[in-house]
Amino acid sequence: MSTEVLDAPAPVLNRRLPAHPVVAIVGATGAVGVELLESLTSRDFPVAELRLLASARSAGTRLSFRGRDHVVQELTEDSFRGVDLALFSAGASISRKYGPIAVAAGAIVVDNSSAFRMAPEVPLVVPEVNAAAMAAHSGIIANPNCVAAILTVALAPLAQETRIRRLNVATYQAASGAGAAAMEELRQATAAYLDGQPFTPKVLPHPYAFNFFSHNAAVDPDSGYNGEEEKVVAETRRILGRPDLPVGITCIRVPVLRAHGMAVSIEFDAPVSVERARQLLGVAPGLRLVDDRVGNHFPMPVEASGQDAVLVGRIREDLGDPTGNSLALFVVGDQLLKGAALNAVQIAEALL
Amino acid sequence: MSTEVLDAPAPVLNRRLPAHPVVAIVGATGAVGVELLESLTSRDFPVAELRLLASARSAGTRLSFRGRDHVVQELTEDSFRGVDLALFSAGASISRKYGPIAVAAGAIVVDNSSAFRMAPEVPLVVPEVNAAAMAAHSGIIANPNCVAAILTVALAPLAQETRIRRLNVATYQAASGAGAAAMEELRQATAAYLDGQPFTPKVLPHPYAFNFFSHNAAVDPDSGYNGEEEKVVAETRRILGRPDLPVGITCIRVPVLRAHGMAVSIEFDAPVSVERARQLLGVAPGLRLVDDRVGNHFPMPVEASGQDAVLVGRIREDLGDPTGNSLALFVVGDQLLKGAALNAVQIAEALL
Repeated sequence: MSTEVLDAPAPVLNRRLPAHPVVAIVGATGAVGVELLESLTSRDFPVAELRLLASARSAGTRLSFRGRDHVVQELTEDSFRGVDLALFSAGASISRKYGPIAVAAGAIVVDNSSAFRMAPEVPLVVPEVNAAAMAAHSGIIANPNCVAAILTVALAPLAQETRIRRLNVATYQAASGAGAAAMEELRQATAAYLDGQPFTPKVLPHPYAFNFFSHNAAVDPDSGYNGEEEKVVAETRRILGRPDLPVGITCIRVPVLRAHGMAVSIEFDAPVSVERARQLLGVAPGLRLVDDRVGNHFPMPVEASGQDAVLVGRIREDLGDPTGNSLALFVVGDQLLKGAALNAVQIAEALL
Repeated sequence: MSTEVLDAPAPVLNRRLPAHPVVAIVGATGAVGVELLESLTSRDFPVAELRLLASARSAGTRLSFRGRDHVVQELTEDSFRGVDLALFSAGASISRKYGPIAVAAGAIVVDNSSAFRMAPEVPLVVPEVNAAAMAAHSGIIANPNCVAAILTVALAPLAQETRIRRLNVATYQAASGAGAAAMEELRQATAAYLDGQPFTPKVLPHPYAFNFFSHNAAVDPDSGYNGEEEKVVAETRRILGRPDLPVGITCIRVPVLRAHGMAVSIEFDAPVSVERARQLLGVAPGLRLVDDRVGNHFPMPVEASGQDAVLVGRIREDLGDPTGNSLALFVVGDQLLKGAALNAVQIAEALL
C-alpha cells in the first residue's frame, strides 16, 4: 500500500474549506455514516448543505439531520458537483474509485477507508497528534484505522515527553469495526444462545455469542500477522512519525458492540514515572483519565461508548521490563467516534 | 502470602494415595465443585467412596456421580474421618481452616484456593510442567490460579528449550473465574440488555453485558497491580522455577462464560523459530495446536470450553522485539477444567 500513487494534483499548501461548506457523506447509511451525522451535529459543524450518498440499494432511505429529513441518493460520478467536503466511509474500493472524482470536482475528501492511508502525498491524521501533517495535501486526507486513532491519541502525550523504544499492544475490539451488520449479528447470536437456539454466523467467520476470536482480517501466511494488525502497526508509526518503531500486536474481537480496548505496554528510552504520565495524560486533548485504583474503576466500553473522549487508565510501571523504562496502560475508545466519525469531523474542522 | 507457615508435619517423601481412595470434595456445589465430579468421571479416577461437602446452606443438595445420587453434607471438623483425598474448592478461608484438619485426619489435600500456593512447604503444581515438585509434601498440594495453570502449560515446552528472559501477558478472562453466580449474572445482564431492561450487577462490580473491565480483584494502590495479576506473576514464576522472571500483565474480564484467553509475548535469551515452537507445542502434553493462518482459525472459547486440552496458536515472531528473540502466541483454556478441576484431578492421579 505504501507504493500507491494517487492520480491527483501535487500537494497544495493550506488548501482549506469555505466557512460554510457543502458536505457530502459517502456511505451515509452505514454504521460510521450515521455517526458522521451525529458528530457533525454534536460539534456544531457549519454545514451549508448536506448530500447523503450510498449504493443504489440504500438510495431512497431517509435520514434526519438537524431536524430535517434527507433522502439518500445513489452515488454516481456526478454526485460531487458543488461539494466542498466529501466524507467517505464506504470501503476502500469505493474510495479508490470515487475519491479522485470528488477531488477533481473541487471537493476535499476525508477518507475513512484504508485506500490512501499509506500514500505519501496523503496526510494520515489524528488532529490531537499530527494536525500539522494537513498543512499540504492533494485533496485527500486519510482518517486512520480505528485502533491506530485511539492508540495514538493516548501515546502522543507520552511520546512527546520521552522517546518510545518499543510497543506491545493486545486489543479487545468491538463488533462495530466490522460494520452495522456485525453489531446486529452479535445481538442476534447472543439472543439465540440465551434461548438455546442454534445460530449460524453470516457476517463474521466465527460464533460471536460469549466468544472472542482472532481478528477476522486475513492473515499473512508468512508473517502470521493479520491485516488489522498490519494496519495498526504501519499507521501508528506514520502518525507518530516513527517509521521504524517496533510494535508487537495481537488483535482480538470480543463480544462488545462499539468500543475498542487495548492493553498497551510502552518501553521508553528512559523512565517515565506513573505520576508524570498521569499528569500528561490528564491534560492532553481528546483523553479522559479513568484511573481509580481504590475504586477499581478503569476504562471500559460501557463508559466509552457514545463519548468523544478516549478513556485512559491503569497507568503503572510495566513489571515485564526489568530496566524500569516501561509503563503499562489500558485504553478504551468508541470505535465509531474517535475510531472513525469523530476523527473525520475533527479533520474537517481543522480545514475550516 | 509467601510467609504463610503451615501448621502441618514436615514434608514427607513420596507420600501417596491408596489405589482406591475415599474422596471428599469441599465446595461440591460451586462451579468448580461440579466440574471436579465431571473430571473424576471423565478421567475414570478410582473413587472408592465419595463424600460431598459444602456450607450448611447447600447441605442436602443432591448431585449425581456415576449414575448415583449423593447428598451434600455440611462441612464440619469431623468431615474428614476416613478420607484419603480431599479436593478443596471453597475459597481461601475455608482452606486455611479445614485444610490442616483434613491433613491431621490423614487425608492428602489438593487445594484449589490461593491459601497455601506460596507456602514453601506446599508444592504448587501443574502436572505437565513440574510434577516432580510433588515428590515431597506435608499433606497439602496447591492447585494454581487458573491463568497461571493455563499459561504455564503453554510456556513450559518453550522454556525447557530456551530460557525465557521476560514475559508480557494480556488476559481475556471469563465469568467462571468469579464463580457460578458470576456466570449467571453475565447471562441475566445480557438478557436484560437485549430486552432493553435495566440490570444492577450484584456479583461483579461493573456491568457485564457486552462490556469488559479490569479484573475485579482489589488493586494494590501503590503498585497499581490487582490481586489476580499478582497471583499470576508469583505463581508463574514458582511453577516455572524462575523466581525472578520479569512478567508484565494486564488482567481483563470479558463477557465470556468459562474459557480464559491470553495474548502472550515471550522474549527468550536466543531466537526460537516459529517452526520449532510449533513443533514443541504440537507434541507437548495438555496442549492442542490450533494455528491455521489460511483458515484464520485460532484458539477461542467456543472450542476450548469443556475441553481438557489448552488451545495454543497464532505463533509468530513478536515484531515488538527488534532483537528477533521474541515470539507471540494466543492461548485459550477452560477456566473450570485446566484452570481448576482438571488440574486438581491430574494432581490426584499423580499421587496414586
